Amino acid sequence: MNIAVAQSGGPTCAINASLVGVFKEALKTPEIDAVFGSINGIEGIINDELTDLKLVIKSNEDMELLRQTPSTVLGSCRYKLPPVEYGGEIYEKILACFERHRIQAFFYIGGNDSMDTVAKLSDYLKGAGSDIRVIGIPKTIDNDLPVTDHTPGFGSAAKYVAATVQEIIRDSSVYSIESVTIIEIMGRHAGWLTASTCVLRANDEIAPHLIYLPECDFSAEKFLEDVRNQQAKYKAVIVAVSEGVKIAGEKSKPVMVDNFGHEYLSGIGKALEQLVRDNIGCKVRSVELNVMQRCSSHICSKTDIDEAEQIGAAGVKAALAGETGKTMCFRRISDIPYVVTVESADSHEIANKEKFFPKEWISASGNDIAPEAIKYFLPLIQGDVKIAMKNGMPVHFKVRG
Amino acid sequence: MNIAVAQSGGPTCAINASLVGVFKEALKTPEIDAVFGSINGIEGIINDELTDLKLVIKSNEDMELLRQTPSTVLGSCRYKLPPVEYGGEIYEKILACFERHRIQAFFYIGGNDSMDTVAKLSDYLKGAGSDIRVIGIPKTIDNDLPVTDHTPGFGSAAKYVAATVQEIIRDSSVYSIESVTIIEIMGRHAGWLTASTCVLRANDEIAPHLIYLPECDFSAEKFLEDVRNQQAKYKAVIVAVSEGVKIAGEKSKPVMVDNFGHEYLSGIGKALEQLVRDNIGCKVRSVELNVMQRCSSHICSKTDIDEAEQIGAAGVKAALAGETGKTMCFRRISDIPYVVTVESADSHEIANKEKFFPKEWISASGNDIAPEAIKYFLPLIQGDVKIAMKNGMPVHFKVRG
Repeated sequence: MNIAVAQSGGPTCAINASLVGVFKEALKTPEIDAVFGSINGIEGIINDELTDLKLVIKSNEDMELLRQTPSTVLGSCRYKLPPVEYGGEIYEKILACFERHRIQAFFYIGGNDSMDTVAKLSDYLKGAGSDIRVIGIPKTIDNDLPVTDHTPGFGSAAKYVAATVQEIIRDSSVYSIESVTIIEIMGRHAGWLTASTCVLRANDEIAPHLIYLPECDFSAEKFLEDVRNQQAKYKAVIVAVSEGVKIAGEKSKPVMVDNFGHEYLSGIGKALEQLVRDNIGCKVRSVELNVMQRCSSHICSKTDIDEAEQIGAAGVKAALAGETGKTMCFRRISDIPYVVTVESADSHEIANKEKFFPKEWISASGNDIAPEAIKYFLPLIQGDVKIAMKNGMPVHFKVRG
Repeated sequence: MNIAVAQSGGPTCAINASLVGVFKEALKTPEIDAVFGSINGIEGIINDELTDLKLVIKSNEDMELLRQTPSTVLGSCRYKLPPVEYGGEIYEKILACFERHRIQAFFYIGGNDSMDTVAKLSDYLKGAGSDIRVIGIPKTIDNDLPVTDHTPGFGSAAKYVAATVQEIIRDSSVYSIESVTIIEIMGRHAGWLTASTCVLRANDEIAPHLIYLPECDFSAEKFLEDVRNQQAKYKAVIVAVSEGVKIAGEKSKPVMVDNFGHEYLSGIGKALEQLVRDNIGCKVRSVELNVMQRCSSHICSKTDIDEAEQIGAAGVKAALAGETGKTMCFRRISDIPYVVTVESADSHEIANKEKFFPKEWISASGNDIAPEAIKYFLPLIQGDVKIAMKNGMPVHFKVRG
């Protein structure tokens, strides 16, 4: 039998490690012959654009480099499959591609939206009497997938954010005048990545002094009051704010939406900067950590990269055991020592759903994170990958000739 | 005799390493008793806010941590001394502070503006018949100081920028649709840091496809034509643009200025993003590398940190040899093997002056960097500092009790 694998949704530092996990496990499995990579997610299956991964990933060194290369070596997409009952033609194209290449299992590495593809496609194939298996491998820096304890890609993003926020704290504290620094952090409508800045307290940082998540209501007045309260204690006030935070009563600006109807978020940092400038008048700046949060492999978490590979491999085993329409998930057994197992869950339970940061880990004031959250986050950022360097720069895996 | 050291201007990853260089050399020098740190640059001398560094930096481990900690442990300032002939009172305060603490030599770690302080203060002291020596230790991520081959802090900024731009290239190349990604890079009116992105070609990257420096005139029409030309070849076009680039014919917006009359720059990335959106209409985004460029010690250049320490130590030797009103400079002997020596130059030659990126290293088209520049930049980003980690995060030096 042959298998195919594709990558979908926004880039992370760990998607290629999951690809390596699928590929390596396939090499070890005598039943599996070819491993096809689908170019640009499910679009590659629909358009019959496949690549033979054994001709792309040629050595253990290639696998190591691919593990440390951010983003998606096969490209990505934001393609949403039509409902099974209306999408005959598309699904027939997919099935035809699978049959043409004798593909018996398809692995889709992605987030909530990609799990929608896994759920629909497995439904269709079952309905069509096919025994081709479809397995979802989770990834997202947002950490917002239900069922799984956490998602590959999140740990590396959190490690980058922690290291960078600590550096911004140093940078912001040099002058003798009062200042406010606002750091805008990704995560869409879930506050996980912003909340993870609380790990700095394990290293004796007090900042960020204020942490705002989309899980709480946010008012401009309360924010200004919070800032003034912190200014009574600290010369340089550091604020971490999630891109998903919305100011109550603010009129929405016209926004762009992607194929899943999701708005492109960003701008709250600049909005809060302006609020402070207009109402407090001290030195203020905002910093957007932008795409660096999801692609800074040079400071990725070894735990995250290793787990991303592990969950990819587990997906292959699940498919061989006959599972389909499933998403691989982590279940946490304990924080200290950190132990997780990999299980599978119905992809319908995950598709298009979001898991929010727990309310009980947000302080009553709505501007801080409870200490209990630290032990959830800390294991996910542990360990450093030994990055291969050339000419003083990390080496990225590139598809050759 | 006692000495004093202060840090001034914008933060970098290497200012604390220069402080360690001064401190370590002082410890080795029998003639030197106390080493005072002045809080917030020259302001600490004026206001008599000094700290005994031997009570702050207590061990070799402290020195190692301080070397890997970004920004300025003593704080900074943007204080401009009045002309010597009009500034009697301020200079008297400074001299009184020096005499009160038996300070025979003062080391000022900073950029062009700080060298203005070194020049004026040494002129005043000579005029007043004092033999107190004033020595400048260069630092700036802008690399825009005259005389010296390069400045401490630049190499680490360039290494961060190279690693990050490479990651953004990966991140930007995942979708099947056309896109333009614009990366705004610091450097004030000099293009060194933006130009340094050309080092990626040593690792077989083609991008950034377009590189714009403030040293060249910039027109919106030419930019759009450049982008369209690159789009004929590449699906994901990557543009590196210096914060100092100004669009010809654009009306200046009201800007904030610091105490040296310098405008706060930034915004060109967003402006170019809007130009592409309005005129080309493809997917476009801009990324500001912001303060991360100057504080990302977690990926600092070992060459830079070692040299920053070395030039600090050389400053102490120069002062002991009787020099004053001098700024320590690097002279490059060869690129391969990379050899530099440290010399001193008259601070008046450096104060308030800028060194621009050489015109002969800019392509005739004004949108690319000549290969010759690569061998200038490469040695500066070599080597990795083994960063001490705790709980998965870098450890920063903090002043205790």
